[in-house]
Amino acid sequence: MATQSTTISPTTTEKLNSIISTAATASELWAATPAAERAAALISIASALDAAASELIPVAREETNLAEGRLKGELQRTTFQLRLFAETLNEGSYLDARIDHADQQWPMGAPRPDLRRQLEPLGPVLVFSASNFPFAFSVAGGDTASALAAGCAVILKAHSGHPKLSEATGDVVRTALAKAGAPEGLFSVIFGTQAGMDALADPLIKAGSFTGSISGGRALFDIASSRPEPIPFYGELGSVNPVFVTRAAAEIRKEEIAAGFTASFTLSAGQFCTKPGVLFVPAGSGLPELIAAQDLAEATPLLNPRIQSGYIEALQTVSNHDSVQVLRSEKRSLEDPPAPTILMTTAKKLIKDHEEIFTECFGPAALVVTFENDSELLEVASIIEGQLTATIHGENSDDVAELVRLLAKKAGRVIWNAWPTGVSVTYAQQHGGPYPATTSSTSTAVGTAAINRFLRPVAYQGFPQHLLPIALQDSNPLCVPQQVNGKSAGASHPMDHNK
Amino acid sequence: MATQSTTISPTTTEKLNSIISTAATASELWAATPAAERAAALISIASALDAAASELIPVAREETNLAEGRLKGELQRTTFQLRLFAETLNEGSYLDARIDHADQQWPMGAPRPDLRRQLEPLGPVLVFSASNFPFAFSVAGGDTASALAAGCAVILKAHSGHPKLSEATGDVVRTALAKAGAPEGLFSVIFGTQAGMDALADPLIKAGSFTGSISGGRALFDIASSRPEPIPFYGELGSVNPVFVTRAAAEIRKEEIAAGFTASFTLSAGQFCTKPGVLFVPAGSGLPELIAAQDLAEATPLLNPRIQSGYIEALQTVSNHDSVQVLRSEKRSLEDPPAPTILMTTAKKLIKDHEEIFTECFGPAALVVTFENDSELLEVASIIEGQLTATIHGENSDDVAELVRLLAKKAGRVIWNAWPTGVSVTYAQQHGGPYPATTSSTSTAVGTAAINRFLRPVAYQGFPQHLLPIALQDSNPLCVPQQVNGKSAGASHPMDHNK
Repeated sequence: MATQSTTISPTTTEKLNSIISTAATASELWAATPAAERAAALISIASALDAAASELIPVAREETNLAEGRLKGELQRTTFQLRLFAETLNEGSYLDARIDHADQQWPMGAPRPDLRRQLEPLGPVLVFSASNFPFAFSVAGGDTASALAAGCAVILKAHSGHPKLSEATGDVVRTALAKAGAPEGLFSVIFGTQAGMDALADPLIKAGSFTGSISGGRALFDIASSRPEPIPFYGELGSVNPVFVTRAAAEIRKEEIAAGFTASFTLSAGQFCTKPGVLFVPAGSGLPELIAAQDLAEATPLLNPRIQSGYIEALQTVSNHDSVQVLRSEKRSLEDPPAPTILMTTAKKLIKDHEEIFTECFGPAALVVTFENDSELLEVASIIEGQLTATIHGENSDDVAELVRLLAKKAGRVIWNAWPTGVSVTYAQQHGGPYPATTSSTSTAVGTAAINRFLRPVAYQGFPQHLLPIALQDSNPLCVPQQVNGKSAGASHPMDHNK
Repeated sequence: MATQSTTISPTTTEKLNSIISTAATASELWAATPAAERAAALISIASALDAAASELIPVAREETNLAEGRLKGELQRTTFQLRLFAETLNEGSYLDARIDHADQQWPMGAPRPDLRRQLEPLGPVLVFSASNFPFAFSVAGGDTASALAAGCAVILKAHSGHPKLSEATGDVVRTALAKAGAPEGLFSVIFGTQAGMDALADPLIKAGSFTGSISGGRALFDIASSRPEPIPFYGELGSVNPVFVTRAAAEIRKEEIAAGFTASFTLSAGQFCTKPGVLFVPAGSGLPELIAAQDLAEATPLLNPRIQSGYIEALQTVSNHDSVQVLRSEKRSLEDPPAPTILMTTAKKLIKDHEEIFTECFGPAALVVTFENDSELLEVASIIEGQLTATIHGENSDDVAELVRLLAKKAGRVIWNAWPTGVSVTYAQQHGGPYPATTSSTSTAVGTAAINRFLRPVAYQGFPQHLLPIALQDSNPLCVPQQVNGKSAGASHPMDHNK
């Protein structure tokens, strides 16, 4: 079990106030910094992290119990993410720049003034980092990258599970930013639960983000929403990530599905927000037996003692439910690292008791559910809460259009014939979903669209060119994509009279 | 004074539950309805409203005290808005369709799967209508138009100030939707404060919107945010809409500015959310005297008795403040319709007492503030709360870049040499702003971008073409704009390996 560091003290109120006020000043300077310079600074951070890998990874191993290969891959993902946001800044479509020329004949009944609109930074952002991704969703992770890209200062609340790594990564980020000429105080790391809550309530903070538990995330969301000035709070909380296997797929690809499922739910000891927690398989398909017979990953200590005890408690509650059988587990004492556990029930029972048993156990456990017919699957899809992902394993001949439609209502990402773990950082990625998957289903935590969560639109009416933001000027010196008089590529706007 | 209708009873709990459950079913059917059919239905509503103008406008006059010309113009705006959203649907860029092809060499460290993402409807929306725009921000107003366009059912909470008009307009909308083949229960009007609050708390409602007071809007925001499943709540609350006149502009265009200001703040008896409530003019410019000498609009009864008494109370509080003088008012008894009132103070006093005197008085009043130097204006711009608009009257030679930058932080729309009243419905419009102007500064209530407030992203990973939403298919039969592998027009993506 990882030892909890006690060498880093919580941030004092005095220090916190100074950090926040410096961040507010830095945020204004950063918002006014050209996008190309912000992009260069992100690339500097990425290079500095790559260069510091050999120092950071041992600290991460010591604090999180995660394997070296996993941590190296995560660091690569983290630096890739920073570089991809740099590219996003240089490309410019994230600004959603729109220009409407003045139009005396605008058919609204009154002339249209010259109106130009772009997205601008919200201001200082408070990021609560995750336990399970000490790099990619922590100090230099996705929200830090997208907030810095957006032009916002970042105050990073370190996770108590990896304080030394947070401090060391924070030093790398700060040094890289300073070398890149970024304003002082643009990025800071703070420590301690109280400091995090105090910062969230501070009027100078303009947005928050979080990755963690439903209870912790909801408490923070409530602070953000009940402030005198409420602020956006992007919490990623809990998700079961159901997987549905059609009868045709079970017949044709039974072995592949059994192996893929066990590999996915035990990856990193099941400590992924996208772990497939529930698998629906056709009754009589033999899949439960095949899954129970798989070689399972070794028992591994979880990220930290709190997560391990939380997992054991949640698992016991579900295991002991009358509707649930244990399909496979190994007897171990509570002190031992948990071994992968597979539970089982039927769709009928799950529909009846879904509030108690269709629930996230953060660790190496999964529930296999046998179903009799497709209408049970549709009923499950209708009653479940919001999810980060929902997956179907099927064949092209399957009639699953209605299931896809219902799952798209419940999940941010719907997956066909793959496993939900492993969230690619891309232009079209969506990592989010209806509550309780997140507190803001209209946003994503992964992918280039994540920059939008820290931006707000501002329109400029009737301004002379020299007073307009550069992306809204007619000469468009940065060559950012501009929508002019409602025209996107290939579209026509019959209401426009300016052409 | 308009008489308050007592003929329409509050919606009963039983009726409300039936309306909500029908709306939930209708919302699913509507979300699956092709965009072109939704567009046709919006156009049908617009045509039906145009055809019903001669019946609706007299009802609006009777209930709101607004003049016929103003109401006709507002109805034209309303039907234009519906038609513009129809155009938005047919054009398709609102979907933000993104396609990433699978890429084995994706430099994240793991292959990129095929990922496709579009925006999809949130589900049933509850719209609280406004007192001051009985057409354009009410039953068939902006939020109804954008929610229906987005593919969401709408439950419209009628404003108590114009219940008969709400019922009559609701009938027109419902009949038009039925004729267009829309699902039953897609649109309903409900009555009564309790019914509105109960609906907002109902788990089947997935978003809310509101136009009105800070206290009312905040109470509803708190309900929306404290639900077991919190939902987005787009409240447009209060705004002072400050206007800053530079010394150069005051010298060159004194008469024009005095006349424009008085016309704008007294338009519709000052009952616009964008009324310029505070005007900053250079000390010694003679502008206050010129403004005081303008022909002012006649005293007019306000929208309803509650608004009139609220206005008189707010105005008295500010007028009686030690830092404020009355520049112009007419003695009238409290029962008489209020005449335009102009108050006055200095920037120094306003900076000291801004919390008490820089405040919205919803009605025909404005505060003229004399300033000594530009640094006072910059200080004002730094300390004020969020605004819908902020305006500068200046000359091209003025050095106002810093003022523009500060105002863009505080307002959704920054205006040059015009007046904030009259919010054009366009592609680049932004009607929103930081709290308390709205509860969600990342959204707009006016313009085609308003459709986004009722949409959320969904990604589809690895799906065969026939199971994908039509806008994400390679053949792109609707010809909607698709961003493919991160490419927008004119942009290059060095990280893409698919070309």
